[in-house]
Amino acid sequence: MGVGLVGLGVVGTGLAKVFAEHGADIDARLGFPVRLVHVADIDLARDRGVDLSRVARSTDWKEVVANPAVDIVVELIGGTGVARDVVLGALAAGKSVVTANKALLAQRGAELDEAAERAGRDILFEASVAGTIPVLRALREGLSADRIKTLHGIVNGTCNYILTQMEEHGESYAGCLKRAQDLGYAEADPTADVEGHDSANKLAILLGLALGVRASVKDIPTRGISSIEAIDLEYAQRFGLRIKLLAVAKRAQGGIEARVEPTMIAESSVLARVSGSMNAIEVVGELSGPTLYCGAGAGALPTASAVMGDVMELARSLRVGAARRVPSLGTVALREQPLLRSQDVEGEYYLRLWVLDEPGALHAITGVLGRFGISIASMLQPEHHHERSVPVVFLTHMTKESELRSAVAEIERLASVRGAAQVIRVEREL
Amino acid sequence: MGVGLVGLGVVGTGLAKVFAEHGADIDARLGFPVRLVHVADIDLARDRGVDLSRVARSTDWKEVVANPAVDIVVELIGGTGVARDVVLGALAAGKSVVTANKALLAQRGAELDEAAERAGRDILFEASVAGTIPVLRALREGLSADRIKTLHGIVNGTCNYILTQMEEHGESYAGCLKRAQDLGYAEADPTADVEGHDSANKLAILLGLALGVRASVKDIPTRGISSIEAIDLEYAQRFGLRIKLLAVAKRAQGGIEARVEPTMIAESSVLARVSGSMNAIEVVGELSGPTLYCGAGAGALPTASAVMGDVMELARSLRVGAARRVPSLGTVALREQPLLRSQDVEGEYYLRLWVLDEPGALHAITGVLGRFGISIASMLQPEHHHERSVPVVFLTHMTKESELRSAVAEIERLASVRGAAQVIRVEREL
Repeated sequence: MGVGLVGLGVVGTGLAKVFAEHGADIDARLGFPVRLVHVADIDLARDRGVDLSRVARSTDWKEVVANPAVDIVVELIGGTGVARDVVLGALAAGKSVVTANKALLAQRGAELDEAAERAGRDILFEASVAGTIPVLRALREGLSADRIKTLHGIVNGTCNYILTQMEEHGESYAGCLKRAQDLGYAEADPTADVEGHDSANKLAILLGLALGVRASVKDIPTRGISSIEAIDLEYAQRFGLRIKLLAVAKRAQGGIEARVEPTMIAESSVLARVSGSMNAIEVVGELSGPTLYCGAGAGALPTASAVMGDVMELARSLRVGAARRVPSLGTVALREQPLLRSQDVEGEYYLRLWVLDEPGALHAITGVLGRFGISIASMLQPEHHHERSVPVVFLTHMTKESELRSAVAEIERLASVRGAAQVIRVEREL
Repeated sequence: MGVGLVGLGVVGTGLAKVFAEHGADIDARLGFPVRLVHVADIDLARDRGVDLSRVARSTDWKEVVANPAVDIVVELIGGTGVARDVVLGALAAGKSVVTANKALLAQRGAELDEAAERAGRDILFEASVAGTIPVLRALREGLSADRIKTLHGIVNGTCNYILTQMEEHGESYAGCLKRAQDLGYAEADPTADVEGHDSANKLAILLGLALGVRASVKDIPTRGISSIEAIDLEYAQRFGLRIKLLAVAKRAQGGIEARVEPTMIAESSVLARVSGSMNAIEVVGELSGPTLYCGAGAGALPTASAVMGDVMELARSLRVGAARRVPSLGTVALREQPLLRSQDVEGEYYLRLWVLDEPGALHAITGVLGRFGISIASMLQPEHHHERSVPVVFLTHMTKESELRSAVAEIERLASVRGAAQVIRVEREL
């Protein structure tokens, strides 16, 4: 069984190393050999610390796809341009495909699925969500009898690392981002991670696997962590809460809720204890109840392990002539379904304001909240001062997001309120 | 696709309900129908709260196996007698098999595997370990590229429930067992659960999937929780530790370590936070690092969900003619391997003694420990009194179990020491 690899980046190089160092072991487990036979990368000159002398090498990915010794093509170049060509080209050439490319899957999933079905070939992508954790496989097969009700995931290790650092050291977002970049946990341009886009791509994939819904990633309300301040993490702790960037999917009345946003959860919950760059996904099914999956969300070898698991699954299927055993997203009944608009969703909220330290300031704020029918569950006036202002923190009872947004817009216009309000959803289900 | 079910106990009835209530949904996901066509149970008269009027019913399991409309046989009667006949009979008749029978798999795994291979059919058993959690699938396929180094599992919900209750209420083992029995968490004869035999059966299965080793369950050193006292849980907490009944498998120097025993682990570890009847398994791979799987270990519907997931996997495979895609334990390179003898294993230990409250008592004990080369990491003399005795608690540094056992035997013979010592392993890896 021959494998072609397109892209010798961090994960691609990791995969080549797994072939070199674990190949004999893997062959023994499979009972037949699986070989890396061809790699493509635009830069073949660079030494990547792995011996590729007995592997065909090309700068043009088309040579990998055209190589008759290649049965399985692994796409690890990322992005949605050339990567798309590689996947579609491989399927058209009758090869099965493994990819870790969440952006491509989230944005072009339907197109790739149709191409795979047309070609009678499979496309697997375990490493695209939550790295090494075999949670896609769990959703696709293990929980396939169940009707999933909710999914809550920490699926971006960069954000979880930064939030954990801010919490532990009381440091600023900017300072912790800088440290994450220095340590290689965050990229030079961290936008896709810290603004939640990477998590939203992963959530789009999870929506298909967990809820059987094909949703457009641009319809997922997405907010990252760059607006979170250390004081919010500190105040959260006073309420017994922690802040995590959560990807959330739920069957709700009237449709499907999905969102990516910083969320306060009880510090006693298991997800609250997932720290550093770890990922975790908690799924609640009607039959199975809650199950939780936790592990490394990134890293060359953990991710390569997941990719290799997919390669082995495909090799086993090809060996017995069993392509298209399972649909890519575990169901043939995938529905195109618009998501609930975020303003129609209900929730509890944390609301933090800076107000002038003068009589009547609080009264004006509670007046606006009352007028919008927003009831206050608790209030806190921490002993911080910033020039003439002091912070005021509210936790609300359940309220429609649209009402809260309108109230906040009005509150921000009050003379006694300084700057923008901080609004963070509180999730009590976990 | 037709399914035959042998055994209408708690899980069997749950499965029939899943067919009745989720069948349409499951058919839609699969894209083809899967039907419960035949059930067998020695008692067909009892009302089980599920409509079986359109399903063939027999008191003789052989009629299910012989029914040409049955493609997949689900064995849910338990035990190793008739259940073995059912599984072997189904395979011999060319049917694929799903079972949740850990005792049968642990004690007859090799025989069942050979029969399945000879028949060219598959046998799946996700529900046999950790109930609803798809951890066998994770090991068999998701982590199949990896070399697993260690596995630590809480795989018996009854024991975890009792230990959690003892910890939370400071109550006796006997009292908590009684409550567990009243609530249906423990059986009238709880021996298999509380003495660790159920966990040992599950560990035998996990040894194959995680480490590729076929071990005899009778070679797994096994100790249950009936000797644990509430004071041990209390003293553990003073050291920042908790007691869990752990099933442990490790690649160690010179061989494979495996055991089931009450174990002290750091209260900050995720496994320590798995409370009540929940199950959890933590696996550490060379490539993947630690991954953790958590969920319900028992219960009619959670277990039926796992069984149905297996039924769907088999149905999908049969549909594309892909039997024997994956070996039962994920590897064709399964090795028969004796386990390391427990006396050769090293560990840290908690040692609790009752000693006469008189000068020189402690000196005599430390003298014996010193003579066996056992060094003390910390010591505690809690303010308890029982007649003229007081407790003394030691945590040791790393020592060979055989040395510790010899030292304890000698200590128990000292005039100042009353009754038997309590010895519990401390696991620092988690």
